[in-house]
Amino acid sequence: MTAPAPATRIVAVDEIAAPVASQMRNAYVDFSKMTCSVIAITAEHRGRRLTGFGYTSNGRYAQSGLLRERFIPRLLAAPPGAFADESGDGLDPRTVRGVLMQNEKPGGHGERSVAVGGLEMAVWDLAAKIAGEPGHRFIARRYGRAVPPDRVTVYAAGGYYEPTTSFAELRAEIRRFVDLGYPLVKMKIGGAPLDVDLARIAAAVDEARPDAAVAVDANGRLTVEEAIACGRALGAAGVHWFEEPVDPLDYGGLAEVASAVTVPLATGENLFSAQDARNLVRFGGLDPATATLQMDPVLSYGVVEYREMLDAAAAAGWAATRFVPHGGHHLALACAAAFGLGGAEVYPTKFQPFGVATPTMRIDGGSMPLPDVPGLGLELRPDLDTVLRRLTP
Amino acid sequence: MTAPAPATRIVAVDEIAAPVASQMRNAYVDFSKMTCSVIAITAEHRGRRLTGFGYTSNGRYAQSGLLRERFIPRLLAAPPGAFADESGDGLDPRTVRGVLMQNEKPGGHGERSVAVGGLEMAVWDLAAKIAGEPGHRFIARRYGRAVPPDRVTVYAAGGYYEPTTSFAELRAEIRRFVDLGYPLVKMKIGGAPLDVDLARIAAAVDEARPDAAVAVDANGRLTVEEAIACGRALGAAGVHWFEEPVDPLDYGGLAEVASAVTVPLATGENLFSAQDARNLVRFGGLDPATATLQMDPVLSYGVVEYREMLDAAAAAGWAATRFVPHGGHHLALACAAAFGLGGAEVYPTKFQPFGVATPTMRIDGGSMPLPDVPGLGLELRPDLDTVLRRLTP
Repeated sequence: MTAPAPATRIVAVDEIAAPVASQMRNAYVDFSKMTCSVIAITAEHRGRRLTGFGYTSNGRYAQSGLLRERFIPRLLAAPPGAFADESGDGLDPRTVRGVLMQNEKPGGHGERSVAVGGLEMAVWDLAAKIAGEPGHRFIARRYGRAVPPDRVTVYAAGGYYEPTTSFAELRAEIRRFVDLGYPLVKMKIGGAPLDVDLARIAAAVDEARPDAAVAVDANGRLTVEEAIACGRALGAAGVHWFEEPVDPLDYGGLAEVASAVTVPLATGENLFSAQDARNLVRFGGLDPATATLQMDPVLSYGVVEYREMLDAAAAAGWAATRFVPHGGHHLALACAAAFGLGGAEVYPTKFQPFGVATPTMRIDGGSMPLPDVPGLGLELRPDLDTVLRRLTP
Repeated sequence: MTAPAPATRIVAVDEIAAPVASQMRNAYVDFSKMTCSVIAITAEHRGRRLTGFGYTSNGRYAQSGLLRERFIPRLLAAPPGAFADESGDGLDPRTVRGVLMQNEKPGGHGERSVAVGGLEMAVWDLAAKIAGEPGHRFIARRYGRAVPPDRVTVYAAGGYYEPTTSFAELRAEIRRFVDLGYPLVKMKIGGAPLDVDLARIAAAVDEARPDAAVAVDANGRLTVEEAIACGRALGAAGVHWFEEPVDPLDYGGLAEVASAVTVPLATGENLFSAQDARNLVRFGGLDPATATLQMDPVLSYGVVEYREMLDAAAAAGWAATRFVPHGGHHLALACAAAFGLGGAEVYPTKFQPFGVATPTMRIDGGSMPLPDVPGLGLELRPDLDTVLRRLTP
């Protein structure tokens, strides 16, 4: 007796590098040359042809080279049925990471983690389409969880340093987010002297109150001493959280900051493996009652690795609600719903057309609805669908 | 008055992916598809045309995509004089990392660290050729250090799991290294059950004694519990060091192992940034009197980042002689001499034709001479020079 042939066969994987260019900068990066990889995985399933889509979050550039050199060839070389679910009918995307990471050494979690995460996202989209389920419900089911809610709490990230941003323009941007309904807005700091940043923060807090809170993000730019001085001032300014006060891997420095300030801390978007996340939880001195963990499933090998992060943190006493993933993308939102996270970041005006938020989308009650179609729903955004169509001629 | 035009102008950067394929494996990786990037940077200097060469160590694949997408364009887009030394005549390779890392976010140290390290290596080779100095002396001078020795202590890495390796073949390989003059030989463990590995180690130690010591490398494959059990057995077996007992980023696990075993520990080849190295020193529980740090300058952004690692470790009480870099390549050997390290790894029979060791090179007195020509001396190996000529038509 031989096993039946799997019902799903991957027939093509395509990728393009798309610009997500903007004229803004944070404390580290000028985004005018930023790109992301957009990925399409096409499969035949019982006579139908379906395509799953993914894209590689933002801030880390397209991964065209790594995808073409190592990861797409490994995906296509996998034996028939390597990605099949138990029934043999659909796909289990939890099989993807192991296949893609064959013959990869441990450590060195950057770039390849983004390439693998983008591919895994496309397989989740494809598998949910085969199953005929919205992505967040499909993810929850694959992990044996209860049917998740169909809305996710979101906050608006903006407040970048743009070439001509005045205080009035910063206020206008904050006002725009508040008027759209966001209960929390985030702005960049650390790219100007502290007194200038504190004045910017005061303007933003003044503009947002009483409808919304303000979080600030230093993008890992400050020294420990600067971060402590800044954090003390931020406590007085009443900000909601102080994000990436020091280098994202400087767990010892973060612990020093954590012991010296009262403002809640947030970090993790630049940690790309479960082992890095374990180190953060173990050595970073963060308070599980107030701190926010921002790891991004697409930047860090996908949902399987992200679930490992959640489990490792849970073992150390962290509730899933302390996780609020970076990235503003469809997979982060689906994970936030499926795993009961505290919410997700979105970019109402940046990194367009990628992500779930648009410049005009209203946020009723502080949360965003998840797509009510099979898959992750990337095609529902017409401007994003235009990009996707370049991959499926 | 305008500044004089710099005397050196980079005119071309070329790269090829070359196979370093072997039929071997360690506990993690089958090397049959391994590649590395070979890089040539050509410059005009006062009417002469010179080319500097680099290659991307081993174990982490070629970085063709990242080099073409981000790092070579940034190198070529740098303004005239961006890499000039104080005199304006030559190049100061210490300027390279900052130019290449523009608009890169912190954290995520993998892949790009290899691409940048390979490019920086080629600039060191080029700059030393312009200066008319052997690479190790040029590096020492750029860092204000005394004229270094012209020999480096080396050890032979081998003992991989190959498809048909018998105990007799393992003994023959160890014998070959001992007969070539290596005072220390290293073999892989962790890819077989502990009792099999212990029998392999006993055979190797027996074969090597009394002329050479034996170190063992688990390539980060073991759990903490397995590593402790293994380490206790290794102490009794008299091995020289126990390398990568656990995941390279699992500092907490490493500290548990360190507190439970007496065999000297070694690790670091999969840490690619100074911040990761700081974490290892701070949280890894290693004994600065006995442990060996194996970070690799090419895998980790180049000499500038590697020097930061040395300085960070020195501030924590580590002597430079505790550093013995991974990689077996020309830049690791030059750094070992220039910075007074404890030695360097070489591969007498693997990863050919890359590296400084060949299958027949004799190691007199346990050390290897550094090339006595301007630059890092890659062209002195005829089989490597054949590869380099593909880049300089």
